[in-house]
Amino acid sequence: MTHTSVAAYAAPAPKAPLERTTIPRRELGAHDILIDIKFAGICHSDIHTARAEWGEGGHFPLVPGHEIAGVVAATGSAVSRYAVGDRVGVGCFVDSCRECDNCRAGIEQYCTGELGNVGTYNAVGRDGEPTQGGYSTHLVVDENYALRIPESIPLDAAAPLLCAGITVYSPLAHWQAGPGKKVAVVGLGGLGHMGVKIAHAMGAEVTVLSQSLRKKDDGLRFGADAYHATSDPATFEALAGTFDLIINTVSADLDLNAYLSLLRTDGTLVQLGAPEKPLTVAPFALIGGRRSFAGSLIGGIRETQEMLDFCGEHSIAADIELISADRINEAYERVLASDVRYRFVIDTSTI
Amino acid sequence: MTHTSVAAYAAPAPKAPLERTTIPRRELGAHDILIDIKFAGICHSDIHTARAEWGEGGHFPLVPGHEIAGVVAATGSAVSRYAVGDRVGVGCFVDSCRECDNCRAGIEQYCTGELGNVGTYNAVGRDGEPTQGGYSTHLVVDENYALRIPESIPLDAAAPLLCAGITVYSPLAHWQAGPGKKVAVVGLGGLGHMGVKIAHAMGAEVTVLSQSLRKKDDGLRFGADAYHATSDPATFEALAGTFDLIINTVSADLDLNAYLSLLRTDGTLVQLGAPEKPLTVAPFALIGGRRSFAGSLIGGIRETQEMLDFCGEHSIAADIELISADRINEAYERVLASDVRYRFVIDTSTI
Repeated sequence: MTHTSVAAYAAPAPKAPLERTTIPRRELGAHDILIDIKFAGICHSDIHTARAEWGEGGHFPLVPGHEIAGVVAATGSAVSRYAVGDRVGVGCFVDSCRECDNCRAGIEQYCTGELGNVGTYNAVGRDGEPTQGGYSTHLVVDENYALRIPESIPLDAAAPLLCAGITVYSPLAHWQAGPGKKVAVVGLGGLGHMGVKIAHAMGAEVTVLSQSLRKKDDGLRFGADAYHATSDPATFEALAGTFDLIINTVSADLDLNAYLSLLRTDGTLVQLGAPEKPLTVAPFALIGGRRSFAGSLIGGIRETQEMLDFCGEHSIAADIELISADRINEAYERVLASDVRYRFVIDTSTI
Repeated sequence: MTHTSVAAYAAPAPKAPLERTTIPRRELGAHDILIDIKFAGICHSDIHTARAEWGEGGHFPLVPGHEIAGVVAATGSAVSRYAVGDRVGVGCFVDSCRECDNCRAGIEQYCTGELGNVGTYNAVGRDGEPTQGGYSTHLVVDENYALRIPESIPLDAAAPLLCAGITVYSPLAHWQAGPGKKVAVVGLGGLGHMGVKIAHAMGAEVTVLSQSLRKKDDGLRFGADAYHATSDPATFEALAGTFDLIINTVSADLDLNAYLSLLRTDGTLVQLGAPEKPLTVAPFALIGGRRSFAGSLIGGIRETQEMLDFCGEHSIAADIELISADRINEAYERVLASDVRYRFVIDTSTI
């Protein structure tokens, strides 16, 4: 297999600052499209992976980035879904087994086949080559794992929808956020701000539970009906037994049982982030109200397209800070300090 | 209010052996029925409460017993549901607020009113008097909190249905155990053996997960399709990703994440017992398969009647060891040693 060399920003080794380099991209296969990447969002997972904090080893040099928005630059001979010039996105995975029950059901993120879902970076593809992400000028991807970005969403603000957007959309849809439902979003960061926008657009009554009231104005602007500080114990008294659904976007250690107590009977708390330590659940918090503590991982291809179309219809996109590639390392530090409103997006033309 | 004195077995103080005594029962109100108690099951909760192990204080002397089967001996002036001679049961609660959303929805066990669900023992009723349970010759209860026991179920073997039966029936029904579903029951004790019988009768494919294979023959006789020892690590490898629903009847500390790994995508593990220590959940175990960890508490009155009728139709009852009242303390020790197949039931005529 021949390759083309493209520019990228990569972590040369675990915990090393990212730097400009070149990486190979495979030649176009029959079902592949070549994407001219325009923008790539910075997700907290990028940092965890670049620093090998999830303990999965890692294929270094490693190009992060799974919030990718761009334009189709070329198509393979058998491509039917996309044409040159189409606005497209790529999210957290670029392939899956396509044969297991989950792949057939369109929830490829939970692929149980031998291949599993193939991460957009730091994974090994069907061809045996390591995958490399979106902090790069070009990407070759199977057309079946690309998404169409609606015209109504600017490409830069669309990029974060591919991970942050779908990560909150999927549980909101699965647990049926909508009119008559009270939804709380814990944390107003990259995921949280998308959660508020999407849950509001779905018609749910939305409450933000954030450490402080610092971002309250933003939260209300995004569509929240209420905003409470979790540093105030009165919040937990006032809101006990209130919510049908709580979406926890915070990866830090939380007193989970306090949040479970905010659920109504039959309510569900969905964990999206993965704290380093296991979480502790007092069984009575669940038993006493038939409550559920659940997890959810991004979304399938079909659902990601549904999310993009939904965002297009409702004019929803991420609030972003656009940066040039030479500021990636600085942006990482600011993400870790929760100092971003609300997602960094790299202008890949600066790579 | 006048009272009648009836014979009972009570714990005079926390951790003291139970002994024969007399307790007051209220005079019949307009909506009350007087039950001539015939049998009372011994539930692990009885022991926790008699020993004040759940830290809730307790109203001593305390008469446990919330698996009650008997015959109506008298009816209040406005009683319409029952007549003298009817075979009736009483479960874990004898009243609730009747006005909150949950009471109106028939899930009185999750009553959110000020009264809450009023436990059959060790609670305080609407009249301000402590409630006393079924280790007793008679009970006065509002007809709306009594259940009809089908003719096809012997009264002694019916008693445990009122707690053990409904505790497993409710989550099996709620999470839709049935044909095409793979259900695992963790633990083959009082709850577990009912779980196997009921899940099997619902048409699910049932697997028992028990510490050893000691009770395998019983499990298969109850209707299990498979039986695995959890002491064997190979069990967890062989059954990874298998079950739609796991009902955990074990109150002891388990490696919850090992059990969560046995769930299919979208599967649910339902915790029924309440271990003294909080449980530890690794978020990836949930996130990686959109799995849920949930709790469930007994069942509502309507559902308890549905369960009894279901058991009547399918000739399901508990496997019991019938004992005289003077063996209650010995039976407690044997319950703690898991030495009962599968539920002790007190012949209350021996009180």
